[in-house]
Amino acid sequence: MPAALSDAAFLRACRRERAAYTPVWFMRQAGRSLPEYLTARGDTAMLQACLRTDLVVELTMQPVRRYGVDAAILFSDIVLPLHAAGLELDIVSGVGPVVASPVRTSADVDRIPSLSPEQVAPVTDAVRALVAELGATPLIGFAGAPFTLASYLIEGGPSRDHARTKALMYGDEATWHALAGRLAEVASTYLRLQVEAGASAVQLFDSWAGALSAEDYARYVLPHSARVLGSVPADVPKIHFGVGTGELLELMGEAGADVVGVDWRVPLDEAARRVGPGRALQGNLDPAVVFAPWPVVAERVRDVLRRGKAAEGHVFNLGHGVFPDTDPDVLARVVDVVHEESRG
Amino acid sequence: MPAALSDAAFLRACRRERAAYTPVWFMRQAGRSLPEYLTARGDTAMLQACLRTDLVVELTMQPVRRYGVDAAILFSDIVLPLHAAGLELDIVSGVGPVVASPVRTSADVDRIPSLSPEQVAPVTDAVRALVAELGATPLIGFAGAPFTLASYLIEGGPSRDHARTKALMYGDEATWHALAGRLAEVASTYLRLQVEAGASAVQLFDSWAGALSAEDYARYVLPHSARVLGSVPADVPKIHFGVGTGELLELMGEAGADVVGVDWRVPLDEAARRVGPGRALQGNLDPAVVFAPWPVVAERVRDVLRRGKAAEGHVFNLGHGVFPDTDPDVLARVVDVVHEESRG
Repeated sequence: MPAALSDAAFLRACRRERAAYTPVWFMRQAGRSLPEYLTARGDTAMLQACLRTDLVVELTMQPVRRYGVDAAILFSDIVLPLHAAGLELDIVSGVGPVVASPVRTSADVDRIPSLSPEQVAPVTDAVRALVAELGATPLIGFAGAPFTLASYLIEGGPSRDHARTKALMYGDEATWHALAGRLAEVASTYLRLQVEAGASAVQLFDSWAGALSAEDYARYVLPHSARVLGSVPADVPKIHFGVGTGELLELMGEAGADVVGVDWRVPLDEAARRVGPGRALQGNLDPAVVFAPWPVVAERVRDVLRRGKAAEGHVFNLGHGVFPDTDPDVLARVVDVVHEESRG
Repeated sequence: MPAALSDAAFLRACRRERAAYTPVWFMRQAGRSLPEYLTARGDTAMLQACLRTDLVVELTMQPVRRYGVDAAILFSDIVLPLHAAGLELDIVSGVGPVVASPVRTSADVDRIPSLSPEQVAPVTDAVRALVAELGATPLIGFAGAPFTLASYLIEGGPSRDHARTKALMYGDEATWHALAGRLAEVASTYLRLQVEAGASAVQLFDSWAGALSAEDYARYVLPHSARVLGSVPADVPKIHFGVGTGELLELMGEAGADVVGVDWRVPLDEAARRVGPGRALQGNLDPAVVFAPWPVVAERVRDVLRRGKAAEGHVFNLGHGVFPDTDPDVLARVVDVVHEESRG
């Protein structure tokens, strides 16, 4: 890795080293909130777009150009590797991932294919092209964590309650672990391929893990997510994120994260206490704050920065993904404030 | 109040007095999970059903007859008083409450009517009939809390993110407080009428409060919910419930609750620590657990009972409403286990 890249503020913060300023990027920074995204993607279906190297490169670069964020995140979706491996699913606009045949039995689990490198060659090609174009700006690769992927597969689509997922966990633990194990394998392979192609950090998205109590998380989920994070080389920073995970922050760190992502519900100083020493934090401006008048936004950004000082390293981000109707100019100003305020 | 009613296990537990056994009821016990409910309601629209005295009585009684729960909860909906007061809204099957004209400006707030007693006369008639029929079994009245009601009005319907609600809070605090104040007034009136008609306890549902950080909850929500709870006579137990409120449990108690409802994410012994002395707890079996094989359900029930001993009073309940596809026989067995295990 070139020295300028290795020395990037984002990677320094992930490694809990002093950085010249607090680095910032936004979950879903590449997406519908950008007019240039809508223009470039046109009517290309989501999963199709994720497998077109030129589009992945362009959509990943757009927010870097516009906002001057300190990291790029690969334009993709957590279900992409399952789709690429041959599992029948689609991303339906306005709904989310929809699975043709929900996975609920051990025979269903056996149908989940492994991922081979050539199936995601358009993605790894994009990673290589991006790393060349990004220069000293790190590229974050990512994968969906076993619990969140399993929930889509078991429920057949997005779910508020994850009731069938829990029913399988509680009712047929062997099948649950077989399924989570398969998904851990797919996620590990997908992250390994992204890192080999040049991604400098990875984020494991366990978006819905917050639906579980700490005890259930520790028993049913942590071992599988730990396997995924453990499969990534030690020198590649690993971010571990979910929504509503106030009760899980310590465990999500223990799963093998260098950086624990925090949503807006827990202030970063309190999150630092829960996560303990040896890990950095990422977060945690409420993505709805950007709809407020600018002075309110600026004050909230400063508050996140102040509280973030309690962490051994702090990567500024939203507490969840950018909302589609976010004004990109507000995000651009957020980046500026984060950089200005955090500079010595 | 007759002595046998005043001495009911449910009311004793709410008052943190020793009870012969742990009382149990289920949020949404009157509803779609019961075949007799589907038969009785037929194709009557939800809000229409809530204003038919005979149906309210029958649907409220059904779970008491079937399960032998220790409290009845009025069959109704949190948006009923707004509908009864003349606000244009509907409950759409499979969606939830849908508001004709979302409330987003101070002029919109002025359109929110007050509630007068005759508008909910069918409900208070039902309360009187129920109290007579229930005898020594307490009837719980309820209302929606200002934040949760406001979210439906501002978003125009159910929302995962409550982004517009937060945008109004953060961006136009005066309008937010005016709206929440109006809704607090409606909720106070509605609870007062139910108590005057004979309800022995009330529950304030702030289902979506868990979307907020503690700081935002304290600033934007707590004063309004406190006003509602403070308007209920001191000798009527007040339960205060929301989902995903791990960060808010202490504040939800401080808002004036005798009993703090806890979802499944925080074990009751930990919840007791957070809530502190002087309050009872209600909860908190994960409603998805009922889909597991019976030995798993029984063990989980026992675990909730064990941890509930750390509270000064414990009302057994689910951590959220009964799922529509729940097997009523499992809930009946849960009631039996709670009673058997907790007796001397």
